[in-house]
Amino acid sequence: MPRLVMKFGGTSVANVERIRNVAAHVAREVAAGYEVAIVVSAMSGKTNELVAWVKDAAPLYDEAEYDAVVASGELVTAGLLAIALRKAGIAARSWQGWQIPILTSDAHGSARIEGIDGARLDAGFARGEVAVIAGFQGIHEATGRVTTLGRGGSDTSAVAIAAAIGAERCDIYTDVDGVYTTDPRVVPKARRMERVTFEEMLEMASLGAKVLQVRSVELAMVHRVPTTVRSSFDPPDNARPGTLICDEDETMEQQIITGIAFSKDEAQITLRGVKDSPGIAAAIFGPLADANINVDMIIQTVSGDQSTTDMTFTVPSADYDRARTVLDAQSGAIEFAQIEGATDVVKVSAIGVGMRSHAGVAAKAFRALAEKGINIRAITTSEIKFSVLIDSAYTELAVRTLHSLYGLDQA
Amino acid sequence: MPRLVMKFGGTSVANVERIRNVAAHVAREVAAGYEVAIVVSAMSGKTNELVAWVKDAAPLYDEAEYDAVVASGELVTAGLLAIALRKAGIAARSWQGWQIPILTSDAHGSARIEGIDGARLDAGFARGEVAVIAGFQGIHEATGRVTTLGRGGSDTSAVAIAAAIGAERCDIYTDVDGVYTTDPRVVPKARRMERVTFEEMLEMASLGAKVLQVRSVELAMVHRVPTTVRSSFDPPDNARPGTLICDEDETMEQQIITGIAFSKDEAQITLRGVKDSPGIAAAIFGPLADANINVDMIIQTVSGDQSTTDMTFTVPSADYDRARTVLDAQSGAIEFAQIEGATDVVKVSAIGVGMRSHAGVAAKAFRALAEKGINIRAITTSEIKFSVLIDSAYTELAVRTLHSLYGLDQA
Repeated sequence: MPRLVMKFGGTSVANVERIRNVAAHVAREVAAGYEVAIVVSAMSGKTNELVAWVKDAAPLYDEAEYDAVVASGELVTAGLLAIALRKAGIAARSWQGWQIPILTSDAHGSARIEGIDGARLDAGFARGEVAVIAGFQGIHEATGRVTTLGRGGSDTSAVAIAAAIGAERCDIYTDVDGVYTTDPRVVPKARRMERVTFEEMLEMASLGAKVLQVRSVELAMVHRVPTTVRSSFDPPDNARPGTLICDEDETMEQQIITGIAFSKDEAQITLRGVKDSPGIAAAIFGPLADANINVDMIIQTVSGDQSTTDMTFTVPSADYDRARTVLDAQSGAIEFAQIEGATDVVKVSAIGVGMRSHAGVAAKAFRALAEKGINIRAITTSEIKFSVLIDSAYTELAVRTLHSLYGLDQA
Repeated sequence: MPRLVMKFGGTSVANVERIRNVAAHVAREVAAGYEVAIVVSAMSGKTNELVAWVKDAAPLYDEAEYDAVVASGELVTAGLLAIALRKAGIAARSWQGWQIPILTSDAHGSARIEGIDGARLDAGFARGEVAVIAGFQGIHEATGRVTTLGRGGSDTSAVAIAAAIGAERCDIYTDVDGVYTTDPRVVPKARRMERVTFEEMLEMASLGAKVLQVRSVELAMVHRVPTTVRSSFDPPDNARPGTLICDEDETMEQQIITGIAFSKDEAQITLRGVKDSPGIAAAIFGPLADANINVDMIIQTVSGDQSTTDMTFTVPSADYDRARTVLDAQSGAIEFAQIEGATDVVKVSAIGVGMRSHAGVAAKAFRALAEKGINIRAITTSEIKFSVLIDSAYTELAVRTLHSLYGLDQA
């Protein structure tokens, strides 16, 4: 029998009534002939409550204990869903991460899945049981301790389970009905996509679209697991298919740009009058890397007198203060005239695999933004996307401009 | 180093502030030189919340899934207490039941502890760590599933852990400061006992005193684990020792009766005019036993005409309706004139190891109750206790009468 993984997030299992609704979605797929594994998050709000208690108990908490506490929320929903399924006449049992086991690294709080033993799940399928799996967690084999995968980790659990059991598809049920060309709250004309490639979805998730966790998309891409994003609030007997994330050769749409993403979690730092000498980039960016600060866009411009240069780059806004401190500590090693920073900036990105085969896609955007009087502070491009850093006040205008420019507006 | 088990119930860990208070109690014992294992319950109210969700999901829920859900509450408090202890500078780690492991039967919802492997806890003590153990739960080895020990099971966890690690003592911290001669809400003159024997405590717990779970007292008696009941609300730096439950030869007090217990969870059934023939008792009580109904007091009285008999017995009030149904179904097999029942009855018991060596202890009580006009419906006695069944309206009067009669009133 074909296998299917269905993942339900916190709002989809927020209370017992919604858990019953989830059971109805599962019943539909069981009736359609699938062997089904379900991955559930904690009831919405529960994980935040647990995290708050941990931080109250000790601001500098032990990560392993954090995991022991925070992983408990998913156990509750997994058990309740198994009960609701059995009530609906569907054989089911719940699985805690360590019972399968889902083996992870020991990076508590943000562990990586290292392997999933599918044998026990296989045996369950052979008994005709639906597997209800607590998401977001695993076990580190050597220590025997419970680990968590980081916030949103249940998406990653679901894709990893799908790869491990050879599922035909991984359906991520959420409170939206698919992946949109951009945030519909910013652009009312945003369109739900029927299909999007793994590569595009990965860029969109990395560049600010919050619908899927980046790691889950990476994993789906590596293991070629067709993954959908769809709504758990559709009627179970008439649920729409949502957006399918799949290989490029399975996509139909031939648009050059498929989506516009934006991220406000950016901060810009500019070092003016840097003495230009070999190794200067390493002197600046080495210490930032040592401090685990992820530098994104980098622009180097030669200044008027040719002997100095201006260096502009972005860091996550959460790391902005720390980056300034690191650079101040390096002021002996790096000679520069002045340091400037800005946190009221946004990175707007256009993504599409069609960029590979079309020239001048980005240039068109720079012109359109200039015509609206939007100043571009920095640019980065890759094979299938380009990003511009602009003042955050222009976010909506820029996103709408690009959305129209590339023909993404709803008919 | 000597070892100590400390158990904290739901009200003692109801929030993070109280968990910090628990950490202070633990710090005192660590400073006193103990290797400490702590057993915790879920935060008060949490288990009830989980049980309510389970019942909402399906009134006839699967017991294994019930356990998977309900055992999660203790994981939260164990992790939070480990964090609070580390914050207080005390090395600590949390342990889930399956991690130790605490092996149990597969009677989900009311599993029995079959064995505890102390090796991992020993290794933790050798590393200088306090062990913070989630109470109320274990794992069934063959299925690998989480089990729970039934309500109040954390007391049993604590005593079993104490036996397994060879602890000098098991301290049960709760919201009262010890075991009283009777319920102080009924008898304001009730006295806190300094010591009570295992046997007496077992009878008191069985007969209605709610301070400790019956199974935990049984286990303490079998393994001779000195156990105290004491208050977690005492100041950590000035905590009173509470009541010590210990062997008879370690008790000081030489009272004949040490406590008065009462239970309102009783119902009386009387079969009048039962045709007296060999095997009649088996015909009545066999079907009740088959229906898992626990019959307690039994009285058979010969009626006037000598050929029939009246049969009176008690069952738990929760089983009263079911018992009536079972007996009605047997009306072909048992000939009787009439069936009567009463649920407004109470069983009042007096307990004391001194009864063994003193005659007429119970007779004195029957006289005293008769003088107050209290009608005794049934009597049972054992080596160290006697119980009378009376109208529940007389509960307080009877308890106070016996409490004074045996010299238990506070000076």
